[in-house]
Amino acid sequence: MARLRNYYAGPAALPLEALEIARDELLDFQGGGVSVMETSHRSKEYDQVHNESISLIRELMGLPDNYQVLFLQGGASMQFAMVPMNLLGPDQSADYILTGSWSKKAVKEAKIIAQANIAATTEKDGVFTSVPKQSELNLDPKAVYCHITSNNTIFGTQWHQFPETGSVPLVADMSSDILSRKIDPSPFGIIYAGAQKNLGPSGVAVVIIRDDMLAKCREGLPTMLSYKTHADKNSLFNTPPSFSIYMVNKVLNWIKGRGGIEAVEKENIEKGTLIYEAIDGSGGFYKNSIAKENRSLMNVVFRLPSEELEKKFVAEGLQAGFLGLKGHRSIGGIRVSIYNANQLDSVKEVVSFMKEFAAQNG
Amino acid sequence: MARLRNYYAGPAALPLEALEIARDELLDFQGGGVSVMETSHRSKEYDQVHNESISLIRELMGLPDNYQVLFLQGGASMQFAMVPMNLLGPDQSADYILTGSWSKKAVKEAKIIAQANIAATTEKDGVFTSVPKQSELNLDPKAVYCHITSNNTIFGTQWHQFPETGSVPLVADMSSDILSRKIDPSPFGIIYAGAQKNLGPSGVAVVIIRDDMLAKCREGLPTMLSYKTHADKNSLFNTPPSFSIYMVNKVLNWIKGRGGIEAVEKENIEKGTLIYEAIDGSGGFYKNSIAKENRSLMNVVFRLPSEELEKKFVAEGLQAGFLGLKGHRSIGGIRVSIYNANQLDSVKEVVSFMKEFAAQNG
Repeated sequence: MARLRNYYAGPAALPLEALEIARDELLDFQGGGVSVMETSHRSKEYDQVHNESISLIRELMGLPDNYQVLFLQGGASMQFAMVPMNLLGPDQSADYILTGSWSKKAVKEAKIIAQANIAATTEKDGVFTSVPKQSELNLDPKAVYCHITSNNTIFGTQWHQFPETGSVPLVADMSSDILSRKIDPSPFGIIYAGAQKNLGPSGVAVVIIRDDMLAKCREGLPTMLSYKTHADKNSLFNTPPSFSIYMVNKVLNWIKGRGGIEAVEKENIEKGTLIYEAIDGSGGFYKNSIAKENRSLMNVVFRLPSEELEKKFVAEGLQAGFLGLKGHRSIGGIRVSIYNANQLDSVKEVVSFMKEFAAQNG
Repeated sequence: MARLRNYYAGPAALPLEALEIARDELLDFQGGGVSVMETSHRSKEYDQVHNESISLIRELMGLPDNYQVLFLQGGASMQFAMVPMNLLGPDQSADYILTGSWSKKAVKEAKIIAQANIAATTEKDGVFTSVPKQSELNLDPKAVYCHITSNNTIFGTQWHQFPETGSVPLVADMSSDILSRKIDPSPFGIIYAGAQKNLGPSGVAVVIIRDDMLAKCREGLPTMLSYKTHADKNSLFNTPPSFSIYMVNKVLNWIKGRGGIEAVEKENIEKGTLIYEAIDGSGGFYKNSIAKENRSLMNVVFRLPSEELEKKFVAEGLQAGFLGLKGHRSIGGIRVSIYNANQLDSVKEVVSFMKEFAAQNG
C-alpha cells in the first residue's frame, strides 16, 4: 500500500530518503559485497559510518571539543541509571525537576543509587500541564547535577528556556527533541537521547558528555556501565548496534542536506504554529490544556468533546491515512507527534483533517 | 557488485533470504504503510514480530515452559555484568571456567560485583587450545552458578560435551554457537547470546532464563539491569531494538524453513568435517593446534607456514571473493567463521581456494 502519514510518538516516522538509501544498499553496502549489518565493526567500511555519525552530531549541534559523543545501548531508560551510577557517590545528591512520566522514572533510578532532591514538580492530580518557572525551583547548590527532561512526549510540554542552575551542570534527557532546535550546549554536562524519535530507529542512544563530567565518573563500576569505558574506546568497546547507527547516519545527513538545525527549527516552529492555531481556532472543539509558553513542538496533545469522538477521530484519521493519533494509554486523548521527519506538508494534511472533522462533528 | 562470501566473526553473514525480505518491505512493513522501524513498539504489527520471535526460539531450541526468553540490549558484554548483579550477593560466589578472552572478560565483571572461583583455565602462555576435561574442574559445590563460554570465537574451541556441575546450574555465553546445534537445556539456568553471529544483526541479545534462577534474582537493582523487569514485561519495559528483533525473526524463520536445528546441525558437522579435513590433509601447510575433540564448528582457526603467506592468503582470498579471513588481531593467523548462514557451498568454495593456495605456495 501507499505509505501512511505516521504520527507515532516513537519509534516514529523516518525520512523517506533515509529509508530509500537503506533499502537500496541493504544487500550490498557501498559496493562492498555485504550488507552493513554483516560488516565487522572493526572494518574500515563500518568505521567510516561510525565516525561520520559522531562528526555530524558535533557539527549539527555545534558541540565544542570538550564534549564526547557516545553511542550506547539500552535507550534513555538505561541512562536513567547510568547517570547516577557514574556521577553520584552514596552521600552525594542530584536535583531532579519533574515534568512528566519520564522524569519520574529518571528520579526513581537515582534514588536506587544515591540521593535525589526534587527541585520542582508540576504534577497536579497525576497530570503535568507546564514546566516550572525559574522562581519555582528549589535548587540545591551542592547538587552534582540537575536533571531535566527537555520535552515531555506524554503530556506535550517542552522547555523553551532551560532552567538556570548556576554552577550546577544540567543533565538532560533530550530523547524527543534532540536536533529539533538550536541549543547552547554550555550549561549541559550530559545530554542523552534514545534515537527512536528524532534520530533514527530504536536500539541506540546518543550520550553527549562534557570532559569535566567524564573526569568525575566513578571507578569500580561494571565495565559496560561506565561512561569512561565507552569514551576511551570511541563507543567500540564491544560490538555497537551498527545498523541503528547507520540509520542515524542517514538521518543526520538528511538534516544536513536540509540546511542543518536552523532550517529544521524554522520548520518545526511553523508546524507547531499551524497545529496549535487549528486547536485554538476550533471554538473549543479541540482543547489543549498546556500553558502556552510550554507547549511542545514535538508532541501536540489535545482532547475532543468526548471519548467517543476521540475514538472516531482516531479511526477516521487512520482511514484517511494518518497513523498513530491515539494519545498515550496513561492519559488518553489525541497525540500528534511531529518530529523532524514529519515535515510541513504532513502537518498541513493533519490540520486539514482536523478542520474537516470539527466541521462535521462540532 | 556481486555479494561476497562473508567469513567475518561477527557481525557476520546473514541468510540472503532474510536480507531480501527486509529489503522488500523496508518502506512498507506487511502492507501497513510504514517501515517496521517506524512502527510503535506497542502496535499489534510489532507485537506479532516480537512474540513470534520468542515462540520460534522456544520451538527451535525445545525450551520447556519454565524458561523465559528475553530480548535485551548491550550484547553479551552487558550480560557479563547482569548475571552476577542479579545472582550474586556480596558473600556469594560463582564458578567460572576460562576457555578464552570472552570468559576472562566475564569473570572480570563477576569479580567487580562479588566473588568468583576459577574452576578451571586452559590458558597456557596466553593462548587457549582446548576446553578442560571434567577431571580438570575444581568445582565449588556452593557456587550459585557455573559460567562457561560454549564456543570461543578467537581461539576456535568449542564445548562438544558440557561440563557436569551437579546441582549447580550452568550459565552459558552461547553468542557464537546458539542455534547451531541441538542442546539439552536442562542443566542451564541461563543461556545468553549476542545476536550478531548466528541470530541476526548486532544490537540485541537473547537471554534465556529458567524460572528458579529468575526467582533468585536480587531486589534493589537499577530497573533496567534486573532480569525480573524484563521478564515481567515480556521485554517491553522500554522500547526494544525492534529492527534487530525483526531481523532475528527473519533468521529464525529461515532456520525453521530449513528443517530446524537438526538440519542446521547436520550441515554444520558436514561443513566442519570438510574444512578440518582440508587442514589436516594439507601436509602441514595449514596447521590447527586445537585439541581435536574441542575444535569449533563455528570458527576455524589455522596458521600458514609464515605470516607473509597468511597476508597473501587473506589478500588473494579477498580477490577471489572471500571476506573476513583474517584472524583476530590478538592472535593473528587465519579464521574462517562459518556460522549457520554460511552454508555448505560457501565452505566448499573456501576449501577449494585453500587447496589451490596450498598447491601454489606449498
